[in-house]
Amino acid sequence: MIKKSLYDNYSIDFKENYRTEEDSYYFIFYNRELYLNENNELPLINEEELNKKFNVNFSLYIGTFKNKPAFVVDIIESSEKFYNLTDVFPIDDELFLIGGRAVQILDWYKNHQYCGVCGTHNVMDDDLMMLKCPKCGHINFTRIAPAIIVAIRKDDKLLMAYHSYYKIKQYTILAGFVEAGETLEEAVHREVKEEVGINIKNVKYFASQSWPFPNSLMVGFTAEYDRGKIKVDNFEILKARWFSKDEIERRSNISISSWLIDDFLDS
Amino acid sequence: MIKKSLYDNYSIDFKENYRTEEDSYYFIFYNRELYLNENNELPLINEEELNKKFNVNFSLYIGTFKNKPAFVVDIIESSEKFYNLTDVFPIDDELFLIGGRAVQILDWYKNHQYCGVCGTHNVMDDDLMMLKCPKCGHINFTRIAPAIIVAIRKDDKLLMAYHSYYKIKQYTILAGFVEAGETLEEAVHREVKEEVGINIKNVKYFASQSWPFPNSLMVGFTAEYDRGKIKVDNFEILKARWFSKDEIERRSNISISSWLIDDFLDS
Repeated sequence: MIKKSLYDNYSIDFKENYRTEEDSYYFIFYNRELYLNENNELPLINEEELNKKFNVNFSLYIGTFKNKPAFVVDIIESSEKFYNLTDVFPIDDELFLIGGRAVQILDWYKNHQYCGVCGTHNVMDDDLMMLKCPKCGHINFTRIAPAIIVAIRKDDKLLMAYHSYYKIKQYTILAGFVEAGETLEEAVHREVKEEVGINIKNVKYFASQSWPFPNSLMVGFTAEYDRGKIKVDNFEILKARWFSKDEIERRSNISISSWLIDDFLDS
Repeated sequence: MIKKSLYDNYSIDFKENYRTEEDSYYFIFYNRELYLNENNELPLINEEELNKKFNVNFSLYIGTFKNKPAFVVDIIESSEKFYNLTDVFPIDDELFLIGGRAVQILDWYKNHQYCGVCGTHNVMDDDLMMLKCPKCGHINFTRIAPAIIVAIRKDDKLLMAYHSYYKIKQYTILAGFVEAGETLEEAVHREVKEEVGINIKNVKYFASQSWPFPNSLMVGFTAEYDRGKIKVDNFEILKARWFSKDEIERRSNISISSWLIDDFLDS
Protein backbone atom coordinates (compact mmCIF):
# COMPACT_ATOMS: atom_id res chain seq x y z
CA MET A 1 0.00 0.00 0.00
CA ILE A 2 1.00 3.64 -0.41
CA LYS A 3 2.68 4.57 2.84
CA LYS A 4 2.46 8.35 2.47
CA SER A 5 -0.59 10.47 3.13
CA LEU A 6 -1.80 13.27 0.87
CA TYR A 7 -1.37 15.53 3.89
CA ASP A 8 2.17 14.64 5.06
CA ASN A 9 3.51 17.82 3.44
CA TYR A 10 0.46 19.28 1.73
CA SER A 11 -2.33 21.43 3.16
CA ILE A 12 -5.53 22.40 1.41
CA ASP A 13 -6.01 26.12 1.07
CA PHE A 14 -7.89 28.24 -1.38
CA LYS A 15 -7.92 31.89 -0.38
CA GLU A 16 -5.19 33.49 -2.42
CA ASN A 17 -3.07 34.79 0.44
CA TYR A 18 0.23 34.11 -1.31
CA ARG A 19 2.71 36.30 -3.09
CA THR A 20 3.26 35.44 -6.75
CA GLU A 21 6.90 36.59 -6.72
CA GLU A 22 7.65 33.86 -4.16
CA ASP A 23 9.10 30.53 -5.32
CA SER A 24 6.22 28.07 -5.58
CA TYR A 25 5.65 24.44 -6.39
CA TYR A 26 3.95 24.13 -9.75
CA PHE A 27 2.01 21.00 -10.76
CA ILE A 28 2.20 21.65 -14.50
CA PHE A 29 0.01 19.42 -16.67
CA TYR A 30 -0.16 18.92 -20.40
CA ASN A 31 -2.87 16.47 -21.49
CA ARG A 32 -3.15 15.24 -17.86
CA GLU A 33 0.58 14.42 -17.75
CA LEU A 34 2.80 16.04 -15.10
CA TYR A 35 6.03 17.95 -15.73
CA LEU A 36 9.07 17.00 -13.67
CA ASN A 37 12.38 18.85 -14.06
CA GLU A 38 15.76 17.39 -15.11
CA ASN A 39 16.22 15.99 -11.57
CA ASN A 40 12.81 14.25 -11.70
CA GLU A 41 11.47 16.77 -9.22
CA LEU A 42 8.55 19.15 -9.10
CA PRO A 43 9.79 22.62 -10.15
CA LEU A 44 10.16 25.18 -7.34
CA ILE A 45 10.22 28.41 -9.34
CA ASN A 46 8.62 31.84 -9.39
CA GLU A 47 5.82 33.01 -11.68
CA GLU A 48 8.17 34.81 -14.08
CA GLU A 49 10.24 31.64 -14.59
CA LEU A 50 7.02 29.64 -15.11
CA ASN A 51 5.79 32.00 -17.83
CA LYS A 52 9.20 32.09 -19.53
CA LYS A 53 9.29 28.32 -19.87
CA PHE A 54 5.62 27.50 -20.46
CA ASN A 55 2.62 28.83 -22.38
CA VAL A 56 0.19 28.94 -19.45
CA ASN A 57 -3.52 28.43 -20.13
CA PHE A 58 -4.59 28.91 -16.50
CA SER A 59 -3.22 28.34 -13.02
CA LEU A 60 -5.06 27.77 -9.72
CA TYR A 61 -3.75 28.01 -6.16
CA ILE A 62 -4.38 24.67 -4.42
CA GLY A 63 -2.72 25.13 -1.00
CA THR A 64 0.78 24.68 0.36
CA PHE A 65 3.35 21.94 -0.29
CA LYS A 66 6.43 21.81 1.97
CA ASN A 67 5.39 25.24 3.29
CA LYS A 68 5.51 26.86 -0.16
CA PRO A 69 2.51 27.96 -2.24
CA ALA A 70 1.37 25.20 -4.63
CA PHE A 71 -0.42 25.69 -7.93
CA VAL A 72 -1.91 23.49 -10.60
CA VAL A 73 -1.13 24.82 -14.07
CA ASP A 74 -2.66 23.91 -17.40
CA ILE A 75 -0.43 24.68 -20.35
CA ILE A 76 -1.18 24.95 -24.04
CA GLU A 77 1.77 23.11 -25.51
CA SER A 78 5.37 22.29 -24.71
CA SER A 79 8.35 20.25 -25.91
CA GLU A 80 9.32 19.42 -22.29
CA LYS A 81 9.01 15.91 -20.92
CA PHE A 82 5.74 15.03 -19.14
CA TYR A 83 4.87 11.93 -17.14
CA ASN A 84 1.68 9.96 -16.84
CA LEU A 85 0.78 9.93 -13.11
CA THR A 86 1.18 6.14 -13.02
CA ASP A 87 4.81 6.69 -14.08
CA VAL A 88 5.24 9.38 -11.40
CA PHE A 89 4.27 6.84 -8.71
CA PRO A 90 7.56 4.82 -8.73
CA ILE A 91 9.58 8.08 -8.87
CA ASP A 92 7.80 9.80 -5.95
CA ASP A 93 4.57 8.41 -4.52
CA GLU A 94 3.83 11.68 -2.71
CA LEU A 95 3.80 13.56 -6.03
CA PHE A 96 1.45 10.87 -7.38
CA LEU A 97 -0.95 11.64 -4.50
CA ILE A 98 -0.84 15.46 -4.67
CA GLY A 99 -0.61 15.42 -8.48
CA GLY A 100 -3.75 13.27 -8.44
CA ARG A 101 -5.57 15.94 -6.47
CA ALA A 102 -4.14 18.72 -8.66
CA VAL A 103 -5.23 17.16 -11.96
CA GLN A 104 -8.76 16.61 -10.63
CA ILE A 105 -8.99 20.32 -9.76
CA LEU A 106 -7.68 21.17 -13.25
CA ASP A 107 -10.27 18.90 -14.91
CA TRP A 108 -13.05 20.30 -12.72
CA TYR A 109 -12.15 23.87 -13.71
CA LYS A 110 -12.05 22.99 -17.43
CA ASN A 111 -15.28 20.99 -17.30
CA HIS A 112 -17.37 23.60 -15.44
CA GLN A 113 -16.71 26.74 -17.45
CA TYR A 114 -20.39 26.99 -18.38
CA CYS A 115 -23.46 26.62 -16.16
CA GLY A 116 -25.19 23.28 -16.71
CA VAL A 117 -28.59 24.78 -15.87
CA CYS A 118 -28.63 27.86 -18.14
CA GLY A 119 -25.42 27.86 -20.22
CA THR A 120 -24.02 31.12 -18.77
CA HIS A 121 -20.22 31.44 -18.30
CA ASN A 122 -19.41 30.53 -14.67
CA VAL A 123 -17.16 32.61 -12.43
CA MET A 124 -14.77 31.47 -9.70
CA ASP A 125 -15.84 32.25 -6.15
CA ASP A 126 -13.58 34.53 -4.06
CA ASP A 127 -13.62 32.44 -0.89
CA LEU A 128 -14.31 28.82 -1.81
CA MET A 129 -13.06 26.54 -4.57
CA MET A 130 -16.41 26.83 -6.29
CA LEU A 131 -17.57 27.86 -9.78
CA LYS A 132 -20.79 29.83 -9.70
CA CYS A 133 -23.26 30.98 -12.33
CA PRO A 134 -23.68 34.78 -12.22
CA LYS A 135 -27.14 34.46 -13.81
CA CYS A 136 -29.00 31.59 -12.06
CA GLY A 137 -26.69 31.05 -9.05
CA HIS A 138 -26.06 27.33 -9.67
CA ILE A 139 -22.81 26.26 -7.98
CA ASN A 140 -20.26 23.54 -8.75
CA PHE A 141 -17.74 22.04 -6.36
CA THR A 142 -14.99 19.62 -7.35
CA ARG A 143 -16.53 16.46 -8.70
CA ILE A 144 -15.74 12.99 -7.32
CA ALA A 145 -17.21 9.75 -8.69
CA PRO A 146 -17.51 7.12 -5.93
CA ALA A 147 -16.91 3.55 -7.10
CA ILE A 148 -16.71 0.17 -5.41
CA ILE A 149 -14.13 -2.57 -5.91
CA VAL A 150 -14.53 -6.02 -4.40
CA ALA A 151 -12.43 -9.15 -3.80
CA ILE A 152 -14.75 -12.18 -3.69
CA ARG A 153 -13.52 -15.43 -2.14
CA LYS A 154 -14.85 -18.95 -2.52
CA ASP A 155 -12.93 -21.23 -0.16
CA ASP A 156 -9.27 -20.63 -1.08
CA LYS A 157 -9.93 -19.02 -4.45
CA LEU A 158 -10.46 -15.46 -5.70
CA LEU A 159 -12.87 -14.34 -8.41
CA MET A 160 -11.10 -12.52 -11.22
CA ALA A 161 -12.59 -11.25 -14.44
CA TYR A 162 -11.41 -10.13 -17.84
CA HIS A 163 -12.79 -6.63 -18.51
CA SER A 164 -13.61 -5.48 -22.01
CA TYR A 165 -12.62 -1.84 -21.43
CA TYR A 166 -9.35 -2.08 -19.48
CA LYS A 167 -6.24 -1.02 -21.36
CA ILE A 168 -4.14 -3.63 -19.58
CA LYS A 169 -5.31 -7.01 -20.79
CA GLN A 170 -5.30 -9.13 -17.67
CA TYR A 171 -7.75 -10.67 -15.23
CA THR A 172 -8.58 -8.52 -12.22
CA ILE A 173 -11.23 -8.09 -9.55
CA LEU A 174 -14.66 -6.50 -10.09
CA ALA A 175 -15.37 -2.78 -9.80
CA GLY A 176 -18.05 -0.30 -10.78
CA PHE A 177 -19.49 3.14 -10.15
CA VAL A 178 -21.98 3.78 -7.36
CA GLU A 179 -25.47 4.67 -8.60
CA ALA A 180 -27.41 7.62 -7.19
CA GLY A 181 -29.59 6.44 -4.30
CA GLU A 182 -27.77 3.26 -3.32
CA THR A 183 -25.43 2.49 -0.41
CA LEU A 184 -21.87 1.31 -1.02
CA GLU A 185 -22.90 -2.21 -0.01
CA GLU A 186 -25.89 -2.18 -2.38
CA ALA A 187 -23.52 -1.08 -5.15
CA VAL A 188 -21.26 -4.07 -4.39
CA HIS A 189 -24.13 -6.58 -4.55
CA ARG A 190 -25.63 -4.98 -7.68
CA GLU A 191 -22.37 -4.77 -9.65
CA VAL A 192 -21.43 -8.38 -8.88
CA LYS A 193 -24.90 -9.64 -9.85
CA GLU A 194 -24.92 -7.55 -13.07
CA GLU A 195 -21.39 -8.42 -14.18
CA VAL A 196 -20.99 -12.09 -13.24
CA GLY A 197 -24.48 -13.22 -12.14
CA ILE A 198 -23.63 -14.51 -8.66
CA ASN A 199 -24.88 -13.64 -5.17
CA ILE A 200 -22.37 -12.76 -2.47
CA LYS A 201 -22.44 -12.45 1.33
CA ASN A 202 -20.36 -11.03 4.20
CA VAL A 203 -19.51 -7.81 2.36
CA LYS A 204 -16.89 -6.05 4.50
CA TYR A 205 -15.18 -2.66 4.12
CA PHE A 206 -11.45 -2.90 3.35
CA ALA A 207 -9.98 0.57 2.52
CA SER A 208 -10.43 3.53 0.18
CA GLN A 209 -8.29 5.28 -2.40
CA SER A 210 -8.56 8.36 -4.58
CA TRP A 211 -7.96 7.27 -8.19
CA PRO A 212 -7.45 10.25 -10.50
CA PHE A 213 -8.23 8.49 -13.82
CA PRO A 214 -10.21 10.67 -14.11
CA ASN A 215 -11.84 11.29 -10.71
CA SER A 216 -12.83 8.14 -8.83
CA LEU A 217 -13.02 7.54 -5.13
CA MET A 218 -12.47 3.78 -4.95
CA VAL A 219 -14.04 2.08 -1.94
CA GLY A 220 -12.74 -1.45 -1.46
CA PHE A 221 -14.62 -4.41 0.02
CA THR A 222 -14.04 -8.10 0.60
CA ALA A 223 -16.89 -10.59 0.22
CA GLU A 224 -17.65 -14.30 0.07
CA TYR A 225 -19.40 -16.30 -2.61
CA ASP A 226 -22.95 -17.18 -1.60
CA ARG A 227 -24.81 -18.84 -4.52
CA GLY A 228 -25.36 -18.82 -8.26
CA LYS A 229 -23.39 -19.80 -11.35
CA ILE A 230 -20.91 -17.42 -13.01
CA LYS A 231 -22.51 -15.86 -16.08
CA VAL A 232 -20.67 -12.85 -17.49
CA ASP A 233 -22.57 -9.89 -18.92
CA ASN A 234 -20.49 -10.03 -22.16
CA PHE A 235 -20.48 -6.24 -22.15
CA GLU A 236 -18.20 -5.05 -19.38
CA ILE A 237 -16.99 -8.54 -18.47
CA LEU A 238 -15.93 -11.05 -21.13
CA LYS A 239 -14.60 -13.90 -18.94
CA ALA A 240 -14.55 -14.67 -15.20
CA ARG A 241 -13.41 -17.61 -13.07
CA TRP A 242 -12.01 -18.63 -9.67
CA PHE A 243 -8.21 -18.31 -9.31
CA SER A 244 -6.07 -20.16 -6.78
CA LYS A 245 -3.15 -18.33 -5.16
CA ASP A 246 -0.50 -19.97 -7.36
CA GLU A 247 -2.24 -18.68 -10.48
CA ILE A 248 -2.00 -15.01 -9.44
CA GLU A 249 1.07 -12.81 -9.88
CA ARG A 250 1.61 -9.82 -7.61
CA ARG A 251 1.23 -6.43 -9.31
CA SER A 252 2.48 -2.87 -8.83
CA ASN A 253 1.17 -1.72 -5.47
CA ILE A 254 -0.17 1.54 -6.91
CA SER A 255 -3.86 0.74 -6.67
CA ILE A 256 -6.42 -0.60 -4.23
CA SER A 257 -7.06 -3.51 -6.63
CA SER A 258 -3.50 -4.73 -5.97
CA TRP A 259 -3.92 -4.19 -2.21
CA LEU A 260 -7.04 -6.36 -2.26
CA ILE A 261 -5.30 -9.04 -4.34
CA ASP A 262 -2.28 -8.95 -1.99
CA ASP A 263 -4.66 -9.25 0.97
CA PHE A 264 -6.00 -12.47 -0.57
CA LEU A 265 -2.51 -13.81 -1.41
CA ASP A 266 -1.27 -13.06 2.13
CA SER A 267 -4.28 -14.67 3.83
CA MET B 1 -31.66 1.65 10.64
CA ILE B 2 -33.71 1.48 7.47
CA LYS B 3 -34.59 -2.18 7.04
CA LYS B 4 -35.51 -2.08 3.36
CA SER B 5 -33.10 -2.04 0.46
CA LEU B 6 -33.40 0.21 -2.57
CA TYR B 7 -33.55 -2.99 -4.61
CA ASP B 8 -36.22 -4.99 -2.76
CA ASN B 9 -38.79 -4.08 -5.41
CA TYR B 10 -36.88 -1.71 -7.69
CA SER B 11 -34.49 -2.51 -10.55
CA ILE B 12 -32.33 -0.02 -12.39
CA ASP B 13 -33.00 0.13 -16.10
CA PHE B 14 -32.59 2.82 -18.66
CA LYS B 15 -33.28 1.58 -22.17
CA GLU B 16 -36.80 2.65 -22.91
CA ASN B 17 -38.28 -0.81 -23.51
CA TYR B 18 -41.63 0.05 -21.94
CA ARG B 19 -45.01 0.87 -23.36
CA THR B 20 -46.32 4.31 -22.41
CA GLU B 21 -49.93 3.16 -22.44
CA GLU B 22 -49.16 0.72 -19.62
CA ASP B 23 -49.90 1.71 -16.00
CA SER B 24 -46.67 2.95 -14.46
CA TYR B 25 -45.38 4.19 -11.13
CA TYR B 26 -44.71 7.91 -11.32
CA PHE B 27 -42.36 9.66 -8.88
CA ILE B 28 -43.79 13.14 -9.45
CA PHE B 29 -41.80 16.00 -7.94
CA TYR B 30 -42.56 19.66 -7.51
CA ASN B 31 -39.69 21.65 -5.94
CA ARG B 32 -38.07 18.36 -4.84
CA GLU B 33 -41.26 17.30 -3.00
CA LEU B 34 -42.98 14.01 -3.91
CA TYR B 35 -46.64 13.57 -4.83
CA LEU B 36 -48.59 10.83 -3.03
CA ASN B 37 -52.24 10.15 -3.84
CA GLU B 38 -55.23 10.34 -1.49
CA ASN B 39 -54.26 6.94 -0.03
CA ASN B 40 -50.70 8.15 0.68
CA GLU B 41 -49.45 5.92 -2.14
CA LEU B 42 -47.39 6.43 -5.25
CA PRO B 43 -49.78 6.78 -8.22
CA LEU B 44 -50.01 3.78 -10.56
CA ILE B 45 -51.52 5.41 -13.64
CA ASN B 46 -51.01 5.64 -17.40
CA GLU B 47 -49.41 8.49 -19.31
CA GLU B 48 -52.74 10.00 -20.33
CA GLU B 49 -53.92 10.19 -16.72
CA LEU B 50 -50.58 11.73 -15.73
CA ASN B 51 -50.88 14.48 -18.34
CA LYS B 52 -54.51 15.15 -17.46
CA LYS B 53 -53.67 15.77 -13.80
CA PHE B 54 -50.24 17.43 -14.07
CA ASN B 55 -48.42 20.00 -16.20
CA VAL B 56 -45.36 17.84 -17.01
CA ASN B 57 -42.02 19.56 -17.60
CA PHE B 58 -40.11 16.34 -18.36
CA SER B 59 -40.21 12.67 -17.43
CA LEU B 60 -37.43 10.07 -17.40
CA TYR B 61 -37.67 6.28 -17.25
CA ILE B 62 -35.68 5.05 -14.22
CA GLY B 63 -36.35 1.29 -14.20
CA THR B 64 -39.04 -0.95 -12.76
CA PHE B 65 -40.85 -0.82 -9.41
CA LYS B 66 -42.98 -3.81 -8.40
CA ASN B 67 -42.60 -5.07 -11.98
CA LYS B 68 -44.13 -1.94 -13.50
CA PRO B 69 -42.29 0.80 -15.42
CA ALA B 70 -41.18 3.62 -13.11
CA PHE B 71 -40.61 7.24 -14.07
CA VAL B 72 -39.40 10.39 -12.39
CA VAL B 73 -41.48 13.38 -13.44
CA ASP B 74 -40.76 17.07 -13.02
CA ILE B 75 -43.88 19.21 -13.12
CA ILE B 76 -44.32 22.94 -13.58
CA GLU B 77 -46.97 23.68 -10.99
CA SER B 78 -49.79 21.98 -9.16
CA SER B 79 -52.30 22.48 -6.38
CA GLU B 80 -51.94 18.82 -5.29
CA LYS B 81 -50.31 17.88 -2.00
CA PHE B 82 -46.57 17.15 -2.11
CA TYR B 83 -44.33 15.72 0.62
CA ASN B 84 -40.77 16.48 1.58
CA LEU B 85 -38.88 13.16 1.37
CA THR B 86 -38.18 13.28 5.12
CA ASP B 87 -41.98 13.25 5.62
CA VAL B 88 -42.34 10.34 3.18
CA PHE B 89 -39.98 8.24 5.33
CA PRO B 90 -42.45 7.52 8.19
CA ILE B 91 -45.23 6.83 5.65
CA ASP B 92 -43.22 4.38 3.49
CA ASP B 93 -39.46 4.02 3.91
CA GLU B 94 -39.15 2.22 0.57
CA LEU B 95 -40.60 5.26 -1.23
CA PHE B 96 -38.10 7.41 0.67
CA LEU B 97 -35.28 5.26 -0.76
CA ILE B 98 -36.46 5.09 -4.37
CA GLY B 99 -37.77 8.66 -4.27
CA GLY B 100 -34.29 9.67 -3.12
CA ARG B 101 -32.77 8.06 -6.20
CA ALA B 102 -35.48 9.53 -8.44
CA VAL B 103 -35.00 13.12 -7.27
CA GLN B 104 -31.23 12.86 -7.76
CA ILE B 105 -31.78 11.79 -11.38
CA LEU B 106 -34.23 14.69 -11.81
CA ASP B 107 -31.68 17.19 -10.40
CA TRP B 108 -28.89 15.74 -12.52
CA TYR B 109 -30.98 16.14 -15.68
CA LYS B 110 -31.90 19.75 -14.82
CA ASN B 111 -28.34 20.67 -13.84
CA HIS B 112 -26.61 19.25 -16.93
CA GLN B 113 -28.66 20.75 -19.76
CA TYR B 114 -25.61 22.63 -21.06
CA CYS B 115 -22.07 21.38 -21.58
CA GLY B 116 -19.71 22.66 -18.87
CA VAL B 117 -16.77 22.67 -21.29
CA CYS B 118 -18.22 24.59 -24.26
CA GLY B 119 -21.77 25.71 -23.33
CA THR B 120 -23.54 23.67 -26.04
CA HIS B 121 -26.97 22.13 -25.26
CA ASN B 122 -26.42 18.52 -24.17
CA VAL B 123 -28.42 15.58 -25.52
CA MET B 124 -29.52 12.40 -23.73
CA ASP B 125 -27.75 9.22 -24.80
CA ASP B 126 -29.85 6.43 -26.31
CA ASP B 127 -28.33 3.56 -24.33
CA LEU B 128 -26.96 4.94 -21.07
CA MET B 129 -28.27 7.43 -18.51
CA MET B 130 -25.76 9.96 -19.77
CA LEU B 131 -25.99 13.53 -21.06
CA LYS B 132 -23.55 14.19 -23.89
CA CYS B 133 -22.35 17.30 -25.70
CA PRO B 134 -22.98 16.99 -29.47
CA LYS B 135 -20.16 19.48 -30.14
CA CYS B 136 -17.17 18.56 -27.93
CA GLY B 137 -18.27 15.09 -26.75
CA HIS B 138 -18.00 15.82 -23.00
CA ILE B 139 -20.21 13.39 -21.05
CA ASN B 140 -22.03 13.65 -17.73
CA PHE B 141 -23.25 10.79 -15.56
CA THR B 142 -25.40 11.18 -12.44
CA ARG B 143 -23.51 13.17 -9.85
CA ILE B 144 -22.90 11.92 -6.30
CA ALA B 145 -21.05 13.90 -3.62
CA PRO B 146 -19.26 11.56 -1.16
CA ALA B 147 -19.17 12.82 2.41
CA ILE B 148 -17.93 11.43 5.72
CA ILE B 149 -19.70 11.42 9.08
CA VAL B 150 -17.95 10.38 12.26
CA ALA B 151 -18.86 9.48 15.86
CA ILE B 152 -15.86 10.27 18.08
CA ARG B 153 -15.64 8.71 21.56
CA LYS B 154 -13.58 9.76 24.55
CA ASP B 155 -14.03 7.14 27.28
CA ASP B 156 -17.83 6.96 27.77
CA LYS B 157 -18.62 10.25 26.03
CA LEU B 158 -19.48 11.28 22.47
CA LEU B 159 -18.35 14.45 20.70
CA MET B 160 -21.28 16.50 19.46
CA ALA B 161 -21.17 19.89 17.80
CA TYR B 162 -23.54 22.73 17.06
CA HIS B 163 -23.43 23.45 13.31
CA SER B 164 -24.00 26.93 11.96
CA TYR B 165 -25.73 25.81 8.76
CA TYR B 166 -28.11 23.07 9.95
CA LYS B 167 -31.79 23.94 9.83
CA ILE B 168 -32.51 21.87 12.94
CA LYS B 169 -30.85 23.62 15.84
CA GLN B 170 -29.35 20.82 17.88
CA TYR B 171 -26.01 19.27 18.65
CA THR B 172 -24.98 16.42 16.38
CA ILE B 173 -21.88 14.56 15.20
CA LEU B 174 -19.33 15.89 12.69
CA ALA B 175 -19.62 15.51 8.91
CA GLY B 176 -18.14 16.98 5.77
CA PHE B 177 -17.56 16.48 2.07
CA VAL B 178 -14.66 14.43 0.74
CA GLU B 179 -12.05 16.51 -1.11
CA ALA B 180 -10.66 15.44 -4.49
CA GLY B 181 -7.51 13.38 -3.99
CA GLU B 182 -8.04 12.19 -0.43
CA THR B 183 -9.13 8.83 0.99
CA LEU B 184 -12.26 8.54 3.15
CA GLU B 185 -10.04 8.14 6.22
CA GLU B 186 -8.00 11.23 5.33
CA ALA B 187 -11.26 13.14 4.95
CA VAL B 188 -12.32 12.04 8.46
CA HIS B 189 -9.04 13.19 10.04
CA ARG B 190 -8.98 16.47 8.08
CA GLU B 191 -12.61 17.44 8.80
CA VAL B 192 -12.26 16.75 12.52
CA LYS B 193 -9.01 18.73 12.72
CA GLU B 194 -10.48 21.64 10.73
CA GLU B 195 -13.79 21.81 12.57
CA VAL B 196 -12.88 21.12 16.20
CA GLY B 197 -9.05 21.13 16.28
CA ILE B 198 -8.50 17.66 17.77
CA ASN B 199 -6.59 14.59 16.57
CA ILE B 200 -8.36 11.24 16.46
CA LYS B 201 -7.29 7.58 16.15
CA ASN B 202 -8.78 4.14 15.40
CA VAL B 203 -10.97 5.41 12.55
CA LYS B 204 -13.24 2.50 11.63
CA TYR B 205 -15.84 2.11 8.89
CA PHE B 206 -19.41 1.84 10.16
CA ALA B 207 -21.94 1.94 7.27
CA SER B 208 -23.00 4.05 4.30
CA GLN B 209 -26.22 5.80 3.23
CA SER B 210 -27.43 7.71 0.21
CA TRP B 211 -28.71 11.07 1.41
CA PRO B 212 -30.67 12.90 -1.29
CA PHE B 213 -30.41 16.43 0.15
CA PRO B 214 -29.27 17.10 -2.48
CA ASN B 215 -26.98 14.24 -3.56
CA SER B 216 -24.67 12.97 -0.82
CA LEU B 217 -23.28 9.51 -0.29
CA MET B 218 -22.70 9.51 3.47
CA VAL B 219 -19.92 7.19 4.65
CA GLY B 220 -20.01 6.70 8.41
CA PHE B 221 -17.05 6.03 10.71
CA THR B 222 -16.39 5.63 14.41
CA ALA B 223 -13.20 6.98 15.96
CA GLU B 224 -11.53 7.63 19.29
CA TYR B 225 -10.14 10.86 20.70
CA ASP B 226 -6.34 10.93 20.52
CA ARG B 227 -5.03 14.37 21.57
CA GLY B 228 -5.60 18.13 21.41
CA LYS B 229 -8.03 20.62 22.88
CA ILE B 230 -11.43 21.32 21.33
CA LYS B 231 -11.26 24.56 19.37
CA VAL B 232 -14.19 25.15 17.01
CA ASP B 233 -13.68 26.80 13.62
CA ASN B 234 -16.47 29.33 14.35
CA PHE B 235 -17.52 29.03 10.73
CA GLU B 236 -19.15 25.62 10.24
CA ILE B 237 -19.04 24.71 13.93
CA LEU B 238 -20.07 27.17 16.63
CA LYS B 239 -19.88 24.98 19.75
CA ALA B 240 -18.66 21.44 20.52
CA ARG B 241 -18.30 19.33 23.66
CA TRP B 242 -18.33 15.77 25.04
CA PHE B 243 -21.79 14.36 25.83
CA SER B 244 -22.53 11.50 28.23
CA LYS B 245 -25.25 9.00 27.32
CA ASP B 246 -27.84 10.53 29.63
CA GLU B 247 -27.51 13.88 27.90
CA ILE B 248 -28.43 12.50 24.45
CA GLU B 249 -31.98 11.91 23.21
CA ARG B 250 -32.66 9.34 20.52
CA ARG B 251 -33.72 10.77 17.15
CA SER B 252 -35.70 9.66 14.12
CA ASN B 253 -33.85 6.70 12.65
CA ILE B 254 -33.94 8.18 9.14
CA SER B 255 -30.25 9.05 8.85
CA ILE B 256 -26.84 7.52 9.42
CA SER B 257 -26.13 10.25 12.00
CA SER B 258 -28.88 8.73 14.19
CA TRP B 259 -27.57 5.20 13.55
CA LEU B 260 -24.12 6.29 14.74
CA ILE B 261 -25.58 8.03 17.80
CA ASP B 262 -27.70 4.93 18.59
CA ASP B 263 -24.59 2.78 18.20
CA PHE B 264 -22.93 4.90 20.91
CA LEU B 265 -26.01 4.84 23.17
CA ASP B 266 -26.32 1.06 22.82
CA SER B 267 -22.63 0.39 23.50
